[in-house]
Amino acid sequence: MAVRTIDWEDDRILLLDQTLLPTEEKYLRIDSIDVLAEAIQSLRVRGAPAIGVAAALGAALAGVLSRAGSREAFDLDVRNAMDVLRATRPTAVNLFWALNRMKTILLTNPLDSVPDLRKKLIAEALTILDEDRRICRRIGRNGANLLQDPISVLTHCNAGALATADYGTALAVVYTAHEQGKQVKVFADETRPLLQGARLTAWELQKSKIDVTVICDNMAASVMKSGLVDCVIVGADRIAANGDVANKIGTYGLALLARAHEIPFYVAAPLSTIDMSILHGDQIPIEIRAAQEITHGFGKQTVPEGVAVYNPAFDVTPHTLVSAIITEAGVIRAPFQEGFHHVLPSS
Amino acid sequence: MAVRTIDWEDDRILLLDQTLLPTEEKYLRIDSIDVLAEAIQSLRVRGAPAIGVAAALGAALAGVLSRAGSREAFDLDVRNAMDVLRATRPTAVNLFWALNRMKTILLTNPLDSVPDLRKKLIAEALTILDEDRRICRRIGRNGANLLQDPISVLTHCNAGALATADYGTALAVVYTAHEQGKQVKVFADETRPLLQGARLTAWELQKSKIDVTVICDNMAASVMKSGLVDCVIVGADRIAANGDVANKIGTYGLALLARAHEIPFYVAAPLSTIDMSILHGDQIPIEIRAAQEITHGFGKQTVPEGVAVYNPAFDVTPHTLVSAIITEAGVIRAPFQEGFHHVLPSS
Repeated sequence: MAVRTIDWEDDRILLLDQTLLPTEEKYLRIDSIDVLAEAIQSLRVRGAPAIGVAAALGAALAGVLSRAGSREAFDLDVRNAMDVLRATRPTAVNLFWALNRMKTILLTNPLDSVPDLRKKLIAEALTILDEDRRICRRIGRNGANLLQDPISVLTHCNAGALATADYGTALAVVYTAHEQGKQVKVFADETRPLLQGARLTAWELQKSKIDVTVICDNMAASVMKSGLVDCVIVGADRIAANGDVANKIGTYGLALLARAHEIPFYVAAPLSTIDMSILHGDQIPIEIRAAQEITHGFGKQTVPEGVAVYNPAFDVTPHTLVSAIITEAGVIRAPFQEGFHHVLPSS
Repeated sequence: MAVRTIDWEDDRILLLDQTLLPTEEKYLRIDSIDVLAEAIQSLRVRGAPAIGVAAALGAALAGVLSRAGSREAFDLDVRNAMDVLRATRPTAVNLFWALNRMKTILLTNPLDSVPDLRKKLIAEALTILDEDRRICRRIGRNGANLLQDPISVLTHCNAGALATADYGTALAVVYTAHEQGKQVKVFADETRPLLQGARLTAWELQKSKIDVTVICDNMAASVMKSGLVDCVIVGADRIAANGDVANKIGTYGLALLARAHEIPFYVAAPLSTIDMSILHGDQIPIEIRAAQEITHGFGKQTVPEGVAVYNPAFDVTPHTLVSAIITEAGVIRAPFQEGFHHVLPSS
């Protein structure tokens, strides 16, 4: 299934407010950079590819909103907006990758008029959006070839339609296998603290009539031991040059559990998630989020007042635990660094 | 810290309603078997040792409440009550162990009058309550000897004062080490779906001024990888003759993660938790609880309507992953079956 997660309409950004799912489907029409930044920080839009698209559309929106008469003033407006967006979340590299592409438009067209550049910014953002759609489809096809029939997949967080402009990365593989007529069953970790698995993955799989069962994160080992899981597929927020994978907190533990049960552990991600400037996963900045997400997660206080809480949003899975990385350019196996060099355009 | 988790007062059962913690401390005065059964099923009182004590006091309460004129009618009243209590929860063996002790009072005193037997039932239940207190202290002392200074312990669910009549099993070890002057830090898994770690373990450790940090279950691997955990200590609901341990869902995964990080994994439990009639953990009945606990955990819907949910309350950790079992009779290491034979009175 493709959801209209994020789009561009009448010179504004349209996005589905994911904090309200699964009980309410409400679209936001974003007409300011501050509102967009808040939406990214509050996870109204989330998922590495979708964050990249949102940032690109944000730079285009900054161009639309700018009242500058000169190129100098216009560029400053757009750059200021990009600085605001760059500071929203630290881990997903797609954010920086998309903003760099938008910045390149400014840098490579110094003689354009303001109206011309405005159009080029919009065009580039829409190209990024469109590319993301096509990338999802290719990831889906490449990954589906790895899946036997029938197949039971365990996934974590949401790397689906709601994390991209089309039908996901990890879930693209599931959707494609389903379209190919394979019998696919999915176990979705609910994914504390913000429950993207329970709220989002279950929602979109149910819409696509794919068999999905929600479990608490701490049930994955038990389900694996019972022989109910054939493979694990997750997305990624940033992949280091050596193949270490930063993804939603809990991914690393899952990878260890998969290894202990001899279950393949796949990562599905676009090439834009690979950060060749970072050699090891330890160098990836990990976002620490508010204690409130854990202490008052369900609208009710669940931790006593004053008790310390630790809330890292991501962890790093060493490449040695990754069976393969599924990209739009093919399935890459160890040694990853070598594989990345073959498919990345300019590294 | 010792909390008054469950007690006997004026011929009635007094218990702290744990479903209201950490925001409300309310005691229930239980004056019927049905109300007690509901309290056990709804986890108002929980934790294997506390469930055993509750069941014993329940049998005594049945004796108090009986209006029977003959021993035959009195015994029937008490046995009916025990049948109701026996059916409340299937996994914790302490429930059945305690009820068997109460039944033995009926069987070994056939000539007693109703008033005499009523007194003996109360006395036996209070003996079980008192034994549990002394057992907690001994488990604490035996376990604390295993802990270096300073020490960082990761625990799951609640195996503390709130799970026993005194100051716990796993947490007894923590409390004793703290009393010995050791510098103790605890990571408490919040323990979905019912958050006994966040709500109960954090609450009682905070009351005792022990350094506690709550994490989501899926963060344990990351915390271990960071070198922040020296050992894992958990409780148990039933231990098979070979040392396999049934405990709160998520324990098995934790044991695998501890093994992967070369961290000792300890189980703290009274001898009454060992079930020599069961050879392997696979034979332990695992309670499957309502989907609602996951889908509507805290008054808010977090899973779309109609999506399947799997909610096992326990899992089984193979004895090969257990570094040692800490009991009131000493610390038992592999081969466990041999160790159990040395300390169990009649097996």
